[in-house]
Amino acid sequence: MGCVQSFRELCDRQKNTNVRVSLPAVCIVWQTAMIILFGIFVRYNEESDPHWIEYRKAKNISSDLENDFYYRYPSFQDVHVMIFVGFGFLMTFLKRYSFGAVGFNFLIASFGLQWALLMQGWFHSLDSDGKIKIGIENMINADFCVAGCLIAYGAVLGKVSAVQLLVLTLFGITLFAVEEYIILDIIHARDAGGSMVIHTFGAYYGLSISWMLYRPNLNLSDRLQGSVYHSDVFAMIGTLFLWMFWPSFNSAITDHGDGQHRAALNTYLALASTVLTTVALSSLFQKHGKLDMVHIQNATLAGGVAVGTAAEFMLMPYGSLIVGFCCGTISTLGYVYLTPFMEKHLKIQDTCGIHNLHAMPGVIGGIVGAITAASATESVYGIEGLRNTFDFEGDFKDMLPTRQGGLQAAGLCVAICFGVGGGILVGCILRLPIWGDPADDNCFDDEPYWELPDEEEAVPPILQYNNHMRNKDIVESNFSVEQT
Amino acid sequence: MGCVQSFRELCDRQKNTNVRVSLPAVCIVWQTAMIILFGIFVRYNEESDPHWIEYRKAKNISSDLENDFYYRYPSFQDVHVMIFVGFGFLMTFLKRYSFGAVGFNFLIASFGLQWALLMQGWFHSLDSDGKIKIGIENMINADFCVAGCLIAYGAVLGKVSAVQLLVLTLFGITLFAVEEYIILDIIHARDAGGSMVIHTFGAYYGLSISWMLYRPNLNLSDRLQGSVYHSDVFAMIGTLFLWMFWPSFNSAITDHGDGQHRAALNTYLALASTVLTTVALSSLFQKHGKLDMVHIQNATLAGGVAVGTAAEFMLMPYGSLIVGFCCGTISTLGYVYLTPFMEKHLKIQDTCGIHNLHAMPGVIGGIVGAITAASATESVYGIEGLRNTFDFEGDFKDMLPTRQGGLQAAGLCVAICFGVGGGILVGCILRLPIWGDPADDNCFDDEPYWELPDEEEAVPPILQYNNHMRNKDIVESNFSVEQT
Amino acid sequence: MGCVQSFRELCDRQKNTNVRVSLPAVCIVWQTAMIILFGIFVRYNEESDPHWIEYRKAKNISSDLENDFYYRYPSFQDVHVMIFVGFGFLMTFLKRYSFGAVGFNFLIASFGLQWALLMQGWFHSLDSDGKIKIGIENMINADFCVAGCLIAYGAVLGKVSAVQLLVLTLFGITLFAVEEYIILDIIHARDAGGSMVIHTFGAYYGLSISWMLYRPNLNLSDRLQGSVYHSDVFAMIGTLFLWMFWPSFNSAITDHGDGQHRAALNTYLALASTVLTTVALSSLFQKHGKLDMVHIQNATLAGGVAVGTAAEFMLMPYGSLIVGFCCGTISTLGYVYLTPFMEKHLKIQDTCGIHNLHAMPGVIGGIVGAITAASATESVYGIEGLRNTFDFEGDFKDMLPTRQGGLQAAGLCVAICFGVGGGILVGCILRLPIWGDPADDNCFDDEPYWELPDEEEAVPPILQYNNHMRNKDIVESNFSVEQT
Repeated sequence: MGCVQSFRELCDRQKNTNVRVSLPAVCIVWQTAMIILFGIFVRYNEESDPHWIEYRKAKNISSDLENDFYYRYPSFQDVHVMIFVGFGFLMTFLKRYSFGAVGFNFLIASFGLQWALLMQGWFHSLDSDGKIKIGIENMINADFCVAGCLIAYGAVLGKVSAVQLLVLTLFGITLFAVEEYIILDIIHARDAGGSMVIHTFGAYYGLSISWMLYRPNLNLSDRLQGSVYHSDVFAMIGTLFLWMFWPSFNSAITDHGDGQHRAALNTYLALASTVLTTVALSSLFQKHGKLDMVHIQNATLAGGVAVGTAAEFMLMPYGSLIVGFCCGTISTLGYVYLTPFMEKHLKIQDTCGIHNLHAMPGVIGGIVGAITAASATESVYGIEGLRNTFDFEGDFKDMLPTRQGGLQAAGLCVAICFGVGGGILVGCILRLPIWGDPADDNCFDDEPYWELPDEEEAVPPILQYNNHMRNKDIVESNFSVEQT
Repeated sequence: MGCVQSFRELCDRQKNTNVRVSLPAVCIVWQTAMIILFGIFVRYNEESDPHWIEYRKAKNISSDLENDFYYRYPSFQDVHVMIFVGFGFLMTFLKRYSFGAVGFNFLIASFGLQWALLMQGWFHSLDSDGKIKIGIENMINADFCVAGCLIAYGAVLGKVSAVQLLVLTLFGITLFAVEEYIILDIIHARDAGGSMVIHTFGAYYGLSISWMLYRPNLNLSDRLQGSVYHSDVFAMIGTLFLWMFWPSFNSAITDHGDGQHRAALNTYLALASTVLTTVALSSLFQKHGKLDMVHIQNATLAGGVAVGTAAEFMLMPYGSLIVGFCCGTISTLGYVYLTPFMEKHLKIQDTCGIHNLHAMPGVIGGIVGAITAASATESVYGIEGLRNTFDFEGDFKDMLPTRQGGLQAAGLCVAICFGVGGGILVGCILRLPIWGDPADDNCFDDEPYWELPDEEEAVPPILQYNNHMRNKDIVESNFSVEQT
Repeated sequence: MGCVQSFRELCDRQKNTNVRVSLPAVCIVWQTAMIILFGIFVRYNEESDPHWIEYRKAKNISSDLENDFYYRYPSFQDVHVMIFVGFGFLMTFLKRYSFGAVGFNFLIASFGLQWALLMQGWFHSLDSDGKIKIGIENMINADFCVAGCLIAYGAVLGKVSAVQLLVLTLFGITLFAVEEYIILDIIHARDAGGSMVIHTFGAYYGLSISWMLYRPNLNLSDRLQGSVYHSDVFAMIGTLFLWMFWPSFNSAITDHGDGQHRAALNTYLALASTVLTTVALSSLFQKHGKLDMVHIQNATLAGGVAVGTAAEFMLMPYGSLIVGFCCGTISTLGYVYLTPFMEKHLKIQDTCGIHNLHAMPGVIGGIVGAITAASATESVYGIEGLRNTFDFEGDFKDMLPTRQGGLQAAGLCVAICFGVGGGILVGCILRLPIWGDPADDNCFDDEPYWELPDEEEAVPPILQYNNHMRNKDIVESNFSVEQT
């Protein structure tokens, strides 16, 4: 007990937000490590190597277009926009944390994707010569992997330093790669849009960390934990780019042909449906039926999360609409009731409400995926279609859809366990008082970590002068008045 | 007469902007209806169905890339961005209506695209088994259909409630689908970029509604009918994404190969040309040659509207530049002279100036299309090229280009009639006092429909104190105090 | 000497920012010239012409997908976004020059791309019938060409008028086309992403112009030469869209297949690496380790510039990371030390720091390209790969890689010479007192060139009144004073 006590005391020492040594050190050391590891391990795959033309002729491939680049590059760019602009701007809603939102998002995504290429490469793309061979699909998967960590960032937004975020990302990517390997390769679950692998894992990882970093006196920063008019408009940039490109997210690594086509279509429909129920619920739960920007910014995206797993299956167009309908409802209710409850009773402070946007819809997505998989039949998919869609090949060629449904459910459990377990572990590490996180009365503020511009308005000199004088006179005259 | 009188009185009752019952009810009921109708009618087409692989082999298609998804998905995503970010942010220019602009745009587009899939499906994609088979082309067409309603929104921006917008969209999509069927299928006009079908129809639909909803006392909201510095920058996000992706808009559903290629090229050129004439005219009509942001935000897009119909024809590069040149001029002149004239004399209050951006350029586009079609020759297009470009097949295989020109003109007339007629009808409905629209002194304001953030700036307490001291009256009274 | 003296006096006359005659005149005349020249010279190429279907059959091309449109259009759209949103918003960081940044960027890019189609066409796409045949690749190249001028704009941002910018663009495009022809066609250097051709040339062109237009009293505008909170967030939109789409920029016109694939991959890695070193250096050189938005907005992009030439070569993944690492470092150091030094001692006022973002990384990119080319071997590239990658065909079929390295270096020198020489020449022209540039105390201000919105906040009158009253103490104390 004494040990725990002293650990807690250690962790609650006076905060020092100066990261002038730690941040550069971590960045330089890790980037150097990346260069060395890439030098040892990473090479181009046959489709990005100049020998492609010989490979093409040897394999009798008729056209350069059969290079996977042309199947996937447009989707990759959409996913890339989601990661950097989507997640980045979605988090700019706080009145004084826009630099941190978009800037730290930029930093951890850039680091994360390098580490993800390595981690996922070791598990998935290791060639017989011990090298990781990378191409366009690895780039997409690396961006996916980063998404998990950015979701986790949403829970701790405004309460951690850049160094903590880099640590969160390092462990997050590592855990992700292991979890993904277990779910996709060992269990053989399918999860094209990552409802389980990305969203469920990422959300529980972030929530557990936030729980470990619970700040009882966070209300000291209440003045900054809200939006201003224009910061909400900035956040809508993030929302819309996530919303619009989600069909690309869910279809980016599905099968060529009908797989990508169907995944995009299902996601498009689910998201449209979500918007209507979000608006309905948001209006219903506010005085005078006014809409709440928090709901519009976040809950409208829940449908995209929830069709992630099943998007490539035969969910049917109406099925997608139903999933979207439910998730818009649940997510909005979450913002209204669950987030305050969790903060008060479970000691989980969830800045962006990722529990409502990623955790619950992610779990729903896993369940929907399991049900859709379990109910797959040859008459609906065709023999070849069933084999392609669920990858019933090699060791799994005699798999039955019902059993696949069970495996999907197992995958969901693994994602939750890794998220919670990993989050608690990493949260422990992040409590150490060496990371430069802000004090309780200094959260949600860019000031400790960014050189902020002078907020003086751009008024002509003469007015500016008057302005300065005005304050001075008033203060002085007031003082003199009070003295009299 | 008494009847009209009492209808008018009924409509002009005290306004109540509380939509807490009506908005959720409409959203939930309509979304539920969508789910039921999709359940009955909508299925995947052969390119998004798992039987694709069997279909491919049966049809001897060599590669998955021949799936229409790969021809059209990048264009679809660009169009999607135009609908949600383009139109949404273009309308954020008002100082206090950015939430409504981007949020309601989001809502009605999400509803509209579902209804459009059904309406257009019944007319165009109904299979022999009574099901609508959807794929990527339907998604693009649904987005196109929504564009018509978003254009109409521009005319009534800030003066209507979300419920009214949903009604406007429901009828707008319905009318659109009928009008489109008549123009494209019965009359057999060509309109790849929708100069007539989308822009002309949408603009006259919106203008007629705005005419029906004329508010004589709108000047009570004058203080809010303008921009602030940053809202104008937000609007430029919308402008630029519309401008940049317009080549994708006009080429999204044209013929594979040279059709898409040429449509993109023509649109690219027309838009570039428009920017220069817009800047020229804007500078010319302002004191001291200063540019007006309203022109730059809107009139620069007129060229894209006006080449919509003819983009896939042999308009020639210089032809595109000429169209852009004229439309930049006309559209800017419209903003300078016509919009004030229409408000004063025709009782049409057009918030975004859609008459200048969509109506006039749309009509010009229809005329340009008719002329270009009428002057088509086999020597320019080649025999097969002529057949492909104008779809002279089946019942129309003996069509002459001159006759096609006449049909194009007929199509334009149909679009105008549907727009005006439909708008008057729907405008009547929207005058009913049940929709929760704002009072005349409360227009262009997010306050009635949105929970607005507290506008207190995030400054440290001590500065805040000084800020509070700034008031002029106080200064004066202080001076008087000092004088006493 | 007297002549120079009187020229200087001529140039330093009283400034008049009224461009009501000159701006419209230049725009209209030039656009008319474009229409005439396009009418004489520009036609569709065989892939955007309706005869494509006959061409396809004659050439035995199996599918419409082999139309170059499908290889390049997604990349084109990404590049297009970089030009208009990327460059435009990157420059919005100044507190009162956002209209000018995004608006003038829009204007000169729209003019520039038309002139570029002609200039590049005469050098590269002139057919045997004396016509320029254009298609998707010309559109990309025109956008590239414009990029050079937009880079130059960065150096003079806020200090010139729109007319000057149009002149800068006219000459810039002309010089670019000549320089590009010399480097790529005569010298036969390779430069897919334009490290030399675009960035080095554009940056030195802009810096030389800025040197010629040196304003000793620019400190009179100091109050406006900084950012405000939200203008920095706007600038991040530009940064991120440039950063995300840079892989498309560098791969847009590389060889089909592995060339595009590898270029995208290398750029993706280099940029990720740059972000980490930029953050490290930015933190290291600020008091308390705070990050500087100027660095994050700009230096993070240096890696993309620097892999421009070598992106299509076998730079190897770790090579890309190393290039990114170095450029992030050098670019950030440039912002810290070099920009102030250049302004003070070299009389070069570089508003956006293009020397750090484009000039130095561009030169590094040229050198990296030369080294990578010189060290190319058949074992790494394969015989066919070597031939394809370096285009060792026709007159150059016996070229050795070492010699190619020398040619790359020669190309770099040509780019620098054209930039510096051209800039001095054009700078001379721009010093003439006829262009409407702002006075020294009026720089970095939209006011001379734009109708600015009234900055009154949009609060209802009653609240406004309350606002004025908000400071209770003052009001109370005043009342008590008045009562006494």
